[in-house]
Amino acid sequence: MQLNSVDQKCLDALAAALPEAALRDVAPRYLEEPRGRWHGQAGVLMAPASAREVSQVIQIANTQRVPVIPYSGGTGLVGGQVSPAGPLPILLSLERMTAVRGLYPEENVMVVEAGAILSDVHDAAAAAERLFPLSIASKGSARIGGLLATNAGGVNVLRYGNARDLCLGIEAVLPNGDLWNGLKRLRKDNTGYDLRNLLIGSEGTLGVITAATLTLVPRPASEGTALMVVDSPTAALALLALAKDHVGEGVSAFELIHGQGLAFLSEALPDLRQPFNTQPEWCVLIDLGMARGLDPASALERIFEEASEAGLVSDGVIAQSEGQRQSFWELREQIPEANRRIGSISSHDISVPLGMVPEFIEKAAGVIGALGHFRINCFGHLGDGNLHYNIFPKHGESRADYAHLSDDIKRAVHDLVHEMGGSVSAEHGIGRLKVDDLERYGDPTKLEAMRAIKAALDPAGIMNPGAVLRASV
Amino acid sequence: MQLNSVDQKCLDALAAALPEAALRDVAPRYLEEPRGRWHGQAGVLMAPASAREVSQVIQIANTQRVPVIPYSGGTGLVGGQVSPAGPLPILLSLERMTAVRGLYPEENVMVVEAGAILSDVHDAAAAAERLFPLSIASKGSARIGGLLATNAGGVNVLRYGNARDLCLGIEAVLPNGDLWNGLKRLRKDNTGYDLRNLLIGSEGTLGVITAATLTLVPRPASEGTALMVVDSPTAALALLALAKDHVGEGVSAFELIHGQGLAFLSEALPDLRQPFNTQPEWCVLIDLGMARGLDPASALERIFEEASEAGLVSDGVIAQSEGQRQSFWELREQIPEANRRIGSISSHDISVPLGMVPEFIEKAAGVIGALGHFRINCFGHLGDGNLHYNIFPKHGESRADYAHLSDDIKRAVHDLVHEMGGSVSAEHGIGRLKVDDLERYGDPTKLEAMRAIKAALDPAGIMNPGAVLRASV
Repeated sequence: MQLNSVDQKCLDALAAALPEAALRDVAPRYLEEPRGRWHGQAGVLMAPASAREVSQVIQIANTQRVPVIPYSGGTGLVGGQVSPAGPLPILLSLERMTAVRGLYPEENVMVVEAGAILSDVHDAAAAAERLFPLSIASKGSARIGGLLATNAGGVNVLRYGNARDLCLGIEAVLPNGDLWNGLKRLRKDNTGYDLRNLLIGSEGTLGVITAATLTLVPRPASEGTALMVVDSPTAALALLALAKDHVGEGVSAFELIHGQGLAFLSEALPDLRQPFNTQPEWCVLIDLGMARGLDPASALERIFEEASEAGLVSDGVIAQSEGQRQSFWELREQIPEANRRIGSISSHDISVPLGMVPEFIEKAAGVIGALGHFRINCFGHLGDGNLHYNIFPKHGESRADYAHLSDDIKRAVHDLVHEMGGSVSAEHGIGRLKVDDLERYGDPTKLEAMRAIKAALDPAGIMNPGAVLRASV
Repeated sequence: MQLNSVDQKCLDALAAALPEAALRDVAPRYLEEPRGRWHGQAGVLMAPASAREVSQVIQIANTQRVPVIPYSGGTGLVGGQVSPAGPLPILLSLERMTAVRGLYPEENVMVVEAGAILSDVHDAAAAAERLFPLSIASKGSARIGGLLATNAGGVNVLRYGNARDLCLGIEAVLPNGDLWNGLKRLRKDNTGYDLRNLLIGSEGTLGVITAATLTLVPRPASEGTALMVVDSPTAALALLALAKDHVGEGVSAFELIHGQGLAFLSEALPDLRQPFNTQPEWCVLIDLGMARGLDPASALERIFEEASEAGLVSDGVIAQSEGQRQSFWELREQIPEANRRIGSISSHDISVPLGMVPEFIEKAAGVIGALGHFRINCFGHLGDGNLHYNIFPKHGESRADYAHLSDDIKRAVHDLVHEMGGSVSAEHGIGRLKVDDLERYGDPTKLEAMRAIKAALDPAGIMNPGAVLRASV
């Protein structure tokens, strides 16, 4: 179905239906995305103040067949938040909808509007002595609506799950403008199809999430962090099993770091203190959060001792203060910034079955090596089987020298991931960047079902056209 | 769209496409359901041996517009597994598809066919020193496909989640006969809409699950169980928070038991040993599963002491042996059997926000009291806000004496649950029993979206017609 650009008639309808404050100029930042791959376009920026106003915007868009691009925190890495071509869309931002609608510490539940920024949600939870355990590097900008629309992951998925696992209910406006109130604060509700999980992860193509009921957890009574040097990814996996055996769900994060990542930190951020005198090939960051009466530092010591006896670890440092803990985490969290400064040729957000991670790392080095001499920084959420597998030029060369190879590199990595039963987008989503990948690697029956669902809920195709699924025109 | 009964043409097509072993006589048990409310009908029973054969059955049904009723373990309590009226359907049983396709202890993953019986899955996990933590009373009959199709709950949801939380991927045949292979063993995979969760909980109306990738967990190193007498449901909730504060995720189950339940056990199953000399009004069963080096019995003692000082508990027994632990659990698990022998007038599987449980229990007693003098057995999964709230005649009277009131009672309970933001089906699903309730209490926008999804994926309406959604004819 042909879509129309925002025109005067559309602007008039929006101005007539919504308060003046809801119509905003499109500042340049709304048309940018972090990878700098696309430049967006927009006919108008709408910033409604309520779910009812969101509904009015969508109704007008649906009637006039004008595309709507939901814009949340703008931090997505796959271009889901920009419309680089086609009819001029309505950009829809929920930045004025940031209220905490309800906080129920005794239920470990918070109801929050979709425009709330993640770090503000963290603060609100902390004020009630609770934790909202979704944590990603862009927490100062990312908003709840976008985090749910993309099913964000991060460093604590191992223990607490993805965004979808931390959401009990949502309020959303569907593509026809109807408002669904699904904000129930229930742990169990088997009344009908799971529309919540369908909208979560649909990247704004099936509707706009306007509010969510989030799961909080009690704050751990004490936390501890260690860096341990392992011989290999295989040893890292054995160490993870050993840590879980010791403290069960107490393992909050288990992050793999390659020596290349530490070298990039030295090169790009020389002020960061390196944890080991000799740069190891592989190390892991282990984070524990424990209930009352349990000491994470002693648990980490016991884990280290036993792992050492088993030949799994050869060196390690256990944080002796909260400051040291933060500095360990900063090492991990600055790796993406160091990567950015070095400049990757191709970056991949992949997952494979947990047990196949070592085999993937070995085989991937082979397929990349067959294409040339590169530096590989492989790091990430080992406990989830989710690696950020990024390819860089040799020292002294620039990514631009290898631009012609970037597609081949991506293809080689993704083909291998697919052969091994993995995912070419573990946590970032499809957006516009990976539409081709989804068509190439996705199950045809699932793709057909996705298209049928999209056509059923959004027959005019107004919601984020071109994201996830190729636009039908 | 008009559906057709299984006729000779349909039988011929099935016989031509599938091996003889797949066509079976319809034994009477396939036409019964545990509540005895409906008697089913069927034109033929198909028991395919592979996903490909399931696909062939569905293709034939779709071409000939013949209804298909997926029949799993037959233990569902809402009549989702029987077709009491309309055209004679194909009954589809996956009882011949019970293989464990793969077991990956180091990944905590098992891939299993949908016909596998839950207790067999438990055994296979145990043989690999792992736990598949979904546990319900009918585990000896219930099959994985039905457990996922109804998003089954049970006693360990508090710690490990519902069936959907324990499933990483599914293989399924969609209503057009296409086979979807979504069996990936991935913890993270953000490639497209969440078709897995859409099929889970759709009660066989959107397709047939043929296999699943299940999440296992390490077996706790030690387990402990206690029964503690609490003054009130409010005190029970405070005790739950205190237990979580002590041992975090170590709380595996937290079940509320009312004195009426203990009295029913005395009356109907007098051989069961009662735990307390004086029957308390309320007690809870707390179950802990701990990692290495932690002693559940000592943790339960500390919890009891502190709860006692805080005035939350007045009596308690901590199991001193595995035998005693099992006997505590048997008390809890025999409550439904005692209920069945007493004979309820109306039974309700409801949930409310956790913090509102005490208010619900108080108000519900009021609305039931206004309808007459009854015995109320309120018990269940307090940690999930999920209560089984069942109404019985006075001692010496029979449920038949009150049959005329059962609809009023159900309506009064469900109205109250709905007012309080709760669910009228927390874990049993909609089936055929609660189609009216879903229409009455469900969000209209969600219902409309459900109908659109059903029409998009199953335009002929062959899959389990009349379950969840009213059949369109």
